[in-house]
Amino acid sequence: MLRYFTAGESHGEGLVAFLSGLPAGLAVDQVFLNRELWRRQQGFGRGGRMKIETDIVRILSGVRNGATIGSPIAIVLENKDWKNWQESLPVEEGDPAKHKRVASPRPGHADLAGALKYNFSEARYVLERASARESAARVAVGGLAKLLLRELGIEVLSHVVAVGGATLKKEISWEQIRGLSELNEVLLNCADADAEQQMKEEVDKVLRTGDSVGGIFELVAHKVPPGLGTYAQ
Amino acid sequence: MLRYFTAGESHGEGLVAFLSGLPAGLAVDQVFLNRELWRRQQGFGRGGRMKIETDIVRILSGVRNGATIGSPIAIVLENKDWKNWQESLPVEEGDPAKHKRVASPRPGHADLAGALKYNFSEARYVLERASARESAARVAVGGLAKLLLRELGIEVLSHVVAVGGATLKKEISWEQIRGLSELNEVLLNCADADAEQQMKEEVDKVLRTGDSVGGIFELVAHKVPPGLGTYAQ
Amino acid sequence: MLRYFTAGESHGEGLVAFLSGLPAGLAVDQVFLNRELWRRQQGFGRGGRMKIETDIVRILSGVRNGATIGSPIAIVLENKDWKNWQESLPVEEGDPAKHKRVASPRPGHADLAGALKYNFSEARYVLERASARESAARVAVGGLAKLLLRELGIEVLSHVVAVGGATLKKEISWEQIRGLSELNEVLLNCADADAEQQMKEEVDKVLRTGDSVGGIFELVAHKVPPGLGTYAQ
Amino acid sequence: MLRYFTAGESHGEGLVAFLSGLPAGLAVDQVFLNRELWRRQQGFGRGGRMKIETDIVRILSGVRNGATIGSPIAIVLENKDWKNWQESLPVEEGDPAKHKRVASPRPGHADLAGALKYNFSEARYVLERASARESAARVAVGGLAKLLLRELGIEVLSHVVAVGGATLKKEISWEQIRGLSELNEVLLNCADADAEQQMKEEVDKVLRTGDSVGGIFELVAHKVPPGLGTYAQ
Repeated sequence: MLRYFTAGESHGEGLVAFLSGLPAGLAVDQVFLNRELWRRQQGFGRGGRMKIETDIVRILSGVRNGATIGSPIAIVLENKDWKNWQESLPVEEGDPAKHKRVASPRPGHADLAGALKYNFSEARYVLERASARESAARVAVGGLAKLLLRELGIEVLSHVVAVGGATLKKEISWEQIRGLSELNEVLLNCADADAEQQMKEEVDKVLRTGDSVGGIFELVAHKVPPGLGTYAQ
Repeated sequence: MLRYFTAGESHGEGLVAFLSGLPAGLAVDQVFLNRELWRRQQGFGRGGRMKIETDIVRILSGVRNGATIGSPIAIVLENKDWKNWQESLPVEEGDPAKHKRVASPRPGHADLAGALKYNFSEARYVLERASARESAARVAVGGLAKLLLRELGIEVLSHVVAVGGATLKKEISWEQIRGLSELNEVLLNCADADAEQQMKEEVDKVLRTGDSVGGIFELVAHKVPPGLGTYAQ
Repeated sequence: MLRYFTAGESHGEGLVAFLSGLPAGLAVDQVFLNRELWRRQQGFGRGGRMKIETDIVRILSGVRNGATIGSPIAIVLENKDWKNWQESLPVEEGDPAKHKRVASPRPGHADLAGALKYNFSEARYVLERASARESAARVAVGGLAKLLLRELGIEVLSHVVAVGGATLKKEISWEQIRGLSELNEVLLNCADADAEQQMKEEVDKVLRTGDSVGGIFELVAHKVPPGLGTYAQ
Repeated sequence: MLRYFTAGESHGEGLVAFLSGLPAGLAVDQVFLNRELWRRQQGFGRGGRMKIETDIVRILSGVRNGATIGSPIAIVLENKDWKNWQESLPVEEGDPAKHKRVASPRPGHADLAGALKYNFSEARYVLERASARESAARVAVGGLAKLLLRELGIEVLSHVVAVGGATLKKEISWEQIRGLSELNEVLLNCADADAEQQMKEEVDKVLRTGDSVGGIFELVAHKVPPGLGTYAQ
């Protein structure tokens, strides 16, 4: 059974991804993993942080001579930004004057609930963990899982079908989704250019007001053998 | 609920310890953690590796300004020996000629079963994980757990009561066990000097024949409130 | 930590619900649990089975003198229909001629995947478990969880906001959702009579063609203290 | 993955055993399961309760036509004694005058810790769960697991090697352990008649003083393929 954990803060030394349960002998294609991380960082309307970081897997354990060895895998994704935060987020006790308070909890985030949970007087430490950056660690784990599935002929991809009021209206084939995944410029990962243009307009509209907008993506798993998983518990 | 995982190989870049579930605001005393790691490395009759490594926690996440922040904790214990193994255990594909085979599986170890499990032609990768060195990561996790218990007035210590045929015959008080834990020279962690001398002789005896010898230790948890845990499931 | 499991088949002796982790001393209001089970059985356009069964909790363990005692709770929901199935679904080996095959796998169900998973020549045993009837056991467990939450002043209710193309368009207050939950006639659990009428028409439309139709419900948890749960893992 | 849970009280309606994860199509030999339950009830120096109960599996779910069907298995082991306890341990609120208090917590049991944990004024409800009778449910689950292992040619048996100061001194073969398991009179499950006689004397000695005595048994798993399990986490 595969199990994963993640650790790490948005402006700490890095994100850490941990996966146990992969069999030994699985080829670990770091180019593929790094491309998955690169794709996570693309998109239209992303925050400025995306320009600072370029995630690269640094594999600490579980992979030797290009393949898994049966041991748990630990991966570090270093935060380039860490050098600017070492004084305000030191592991050892630091200078309180350097601390960067988040006194105004962001709506739609964990800031307020997290600060109340742990009785923090502001939300810095909540923001550090409840951060989109954490998803980089999950992408690394997911990339490893995809390498295992690839050996079994299974492929998992996704595409965006709605952003705000703009929706994809055409039928999209597996080949088109695959084509999307191979592009070297990623906007909103929608397979239809017209729909994607409308989605971009939805993003632009809310960006002007300092708001954000939700969307829907469809996840497609290709060549999954019937009977995988269970209906029984 | 606390959950922990470990990763890392005996001669890889390092051991990795993960712990999630600690509340925020717990002071993290690195001196205490490093002493726990130091104590693991002591003892009479240990292998030569103990002289190479001096474990020091390098906390990657979960601790800021000397205290936990509610995020999962990741700790790396670097292997000093890694510099001598980078060519034979590289993450990327390396030179097969540099590989150090373990062609003769050690009795009483996972070598044979592990090699059969993963269809390895020798046991190097098994030895790398099924190694006493992995326990360093568990000591780091255990040290963090002890810091939590310390806040609640609970202390957990142990002492050795038998090695081979040599057994402790005296009643040992909590104060004596505590005294043992404060010593700066650790032999076999037995509270009675005579018994410890006999235990050392048991170790010497088997060392001469290239064998090893088992023992028994007693673990004492002090000031545990009644009702902790469950009898129900 | 609460943990639950369910067992039981749609036409077997009954459904079994299991819950461990409730503290001792929680009053167990069987009238409430049975009303929850009754509500599950209501609704517009349900199958004929609903008329056969009237679920009543039979508590085997974990509750004594009207309250939890700290032991795991096991509940049996007997299938009235079992008396008609004993010959075709006996525990001991039975007469193959009495077996009721499901040779035509139902679309949108687990039938085909389940039969392939376990190499069954037909889908009877899959249907027996992948059955809406199983949800009765989950309602029983959920009812117990609601009794615990009630002690903490937390209430969890839901209402239907869309069926097929028919959607609720009005804002609904907590009091209206609560009012819905107290009704003794349950159609589609929509708080707006006009919208519910349109939803019924959506159901009628698909019933005529032997099809079914999806919907959306909104779940509201009232008086949840901020900070419950975690953002950290 | 197999998962099991148990529920039920010592003097309640019965013990309940749950097991999920068995594949479909495994023959369920109830004669074998009942013999396992019978063996649990044997032994020298057991309490009087053993004479009251004769455990028989009543399979509620997961087995049809003599074999597993992939659904979770629920088994009830009815307590014959329940008829004498219905008034003092009713599910619904009962007559407090009928309650059988356990005001004197038994040493070496969960009574005191359990009563403190749940703030009971006496230990009846603790005793009901922290009871050797609960192990009957585990034997039922273990029996099912043995049936799965049997298909793979694996057999798991045990024998007693020490009771108090009396120890087995001879080497015992697999055939002797197997012979023990086939006996229809079970005393202390020791393969050497002389050693068993000494063990009985140890039991007799403590019985006279109202005490009990510990022992050691050896568990042997036969024909386990190397590589089962893991050394990696």
